[in-house]
Formats: sequence, structure tokens, C-alpha cells
Amino acid sequence: MSMFPSALDELIEKFASLPGVGLKSAQRLAFHILSLPEEEARSFAAAIVKARETVHTCKICQNLTDSDECAICRSPTRDGDVVCVVASPKDVAAMERAREYNGRYHVLHGVISPLNHIGPDDIRIRELVDRVAEGGIREVIMAMNPDTEGETTAKYISRLLKPFGVKVTRLAYGIPVGASLEFADDATLMRALEGRQEI
Amino acid sequence: MSMFPSALDELIEKFASLPGVGLKSAQRLAFHILSLPEEEARSFAAAIVKARETVHTCKICQNLTDSDECAICRSPTRDGDVVCVVASPKDVAAMERAREYNGRYHVLHGVISPLNHIGPDDIRIRELVDRVAEGGIREVIMAMNPDTEGETTAKYISRLLKPFGVKVTRLAYGIPVGASLEFADDATLMRALEGRQEI
Repeated sequence: MSMFPSALDELIEKFASLPGVGLKSAQRLAFHILSLPEEEARSFAAAIVKARETVHTCKICQNLTDSDECAICRSPTRDGDVVCVVASPKDVAAMERAREYNGRYHVLHGVISPLNHIGPDDIRIRELVDRVAEGGIREVIMAMNPDTEGETTAKYISRLLKPFGVKVTRLAYGIPVGASLEFADDATLMRALEGRQEI
Repeated sequence: MSMFPSALDELIEKFASLPGVGLKSAQRLAFHILSLPEEEARSFAAAIVKARETVHTCKICQNLTDSDECAICRSPTRDGDVVCVVASPKDVAAMERAREYNGRYHVLHGVISPLNHIGPDDIRIRELVDRVAEGGIREVIMAMNPDTEGETTAKYISRLLKPFGVKVTRLAYGIPVGASLEFADDATLMRALEGRQEI
């Protein structure tokens, strides 16, 4: 039997249902909510409802947006014939931080992962194929994480897109800038050697 | 400039304001909220508001409750002349799990901590003194954490209560059950030796 009032138990349970939050952390978070001014607790709750209600995926690139089409898809200055395919909206944010890419995106919302029962139909691959089929896209850049699932997904998609005569590329593998050769793993070193460039 | 819709940014900010939640975790939590069925997101928000609105402190023992007096203070089977003083509602929960104590509690909601600018008037000491002054309490058990702040608080309170002729005790220090002597720290061993008992 819990020694807390039921409303507190319920809140602890809600926090504990979040990914990576254990029972002890959930207790700490719930106690923090109780310690907030009532106005702030209400505004926290309102932020949850508002985010869930207003944020959805862009009908073109599937990135998160609060309008019909996202800011990047609407922007007239972005290069419309290059599409960078990423697994998650966080990856769009990472690419944008690099300030190097001026094309559009396509967000898959996951990668193919048989172990987790995620097949090609569970992520937004169909939407990408439809975009390419419509024409106007010259190059599709695969920017998935360099792991087995990312590579499988990239290869699967590239096979689907090839018939449309579109160029499919992927981000370069290599030594991360600022890293030390000494601590680079074998696979990375091998890829860096394969991808060596003349200077 | 963030690449997320503003409602998502706001939610990330709210999560990041929680204790022990960094920006990356806050992002993960906010994305999880977006992935919930709308009904579940609403019920999370409702749990926050409900907990903040209905949970307050018991007017007798200061423990958290959703009624005027908490279940323990209302219970006719609990021993009313012994009061166990703890720093936080979580400590009440810990004591109750031990199923050994049948008295009442008093929750201070903190300990005296000059470094954190928490003085005797910032925690619920006055309420405890008032309870003892009203009479009917025979023994007050100090159950603060065995650290400097806990001990300072216990000593301060015990000096305040002595004039009322009440017995003030504190939990025993010693080797934790199941622990190994080899790894016990010096202070604990010293306390265990001082508190040795005939068998």
C-alpha cells in the first residue's frame, strides 16, 4: 500500500511511464510538481496538451510542424531537387545546425528494424517514394545513423528509388573532426581509408 | 533558431525545467508525449493539475494528503503518544514499509541547512512544537538522515522540546543489515561500537 495520496500516486505513475524514468526519478519529478506555484503546474499541463494537439507531421516531408507544410518545405530559398532522408526530426535539427545543407528533407520516423518488428511499412518510406515518383527530385541523400539498421534502411530505400532514375547518395563515413586516430575504432578507420581523398 | 514547432520547444523547455532533466532527456520526453494517443497525453496533463490541486499537507502532521487530516492521523489504531519526526514524505513511506512503527509522524519538509539558506523557520518545526505543547505526546523519535544537517536539525528540535518534559530519542546508528563489515566506513563502525548491545 502506498503512503501517498492517490492523486500523487497517479502522477508518479505517469512520470514513471516515460522512457528512461524509473520509480525514484518519477517520485522526484512528482514532488517537484507539487512544489511549483499552481500557475506553473497548470502551464506545464497546458504545454503537454498544446504540443500534442498542434504538432503533427508536414504533409510533404513528414517532419514535425504546427502548420500544414513545414517551414523548410514552404521556403522558396531551399533547393527543391535535393532531398535528405533522416530517421527522426532530431536529425533534421542536427543537419540544420551544421548550416551547410540547403535542400529539403524527408523524415522516416524510424528505421527498418526486424528485431523490433519495424518493417518498411511502419516508417514513412511510401511517402518518400511518392515524392520521388512525382518528379522534380534529382538527388536523394541518405543520412541515417551508420549502424546496421541505418544501412539496411538506406539500401532498401535506394533499391526502391533507383527505377525513377534519381541519384541516391549517402553521407561520408570517416574520422570525426577533432577526434584522435588513436581512439578511432577499426570499422571507422577502414571506412576512412576506403573513402580517402586526394589533397 | 530551433527547428521544432514552437509548441514542441515549449514542452521541451518545461521538461528541462524539472530537476535532473537535461536538454537531451527533455527532448526525448517531449517526443514521447507527441507519440502518445491524444487521450493519454490529456490524462498526463490532468494528473499534473489534479495532483497540484488536491494534494496538500495534513494540518496535524504536515504529511501530504488529499483530505484535511491524513490517514495516519485519523487512524484510531495508531499510537498517538509517539511521534516520529522525518524530513520528507518519502521518509514516512520508507518507515511504513518497515511495518514496525505504529505511532504518528511529523514531516518537517526539509532540514536546517545554513549553506542552502534554510533556517528553522523555513521548515515545519513550529508546528511540531505546537503539537508537543498541546500535550498527549510522550516520546518524539528523530528520524532524520544521519548527516550533519540531519543531526543539527535533530539537536535543535530536541533542545526546543526538552522544556515540555517529553522524551526525545533518535534512530540507532550501526551496520546496515546485510552489509559487510569490511566495507563499513569508520564513522559507522565507531557508532556501531558505541551502540553495542548485549546478546
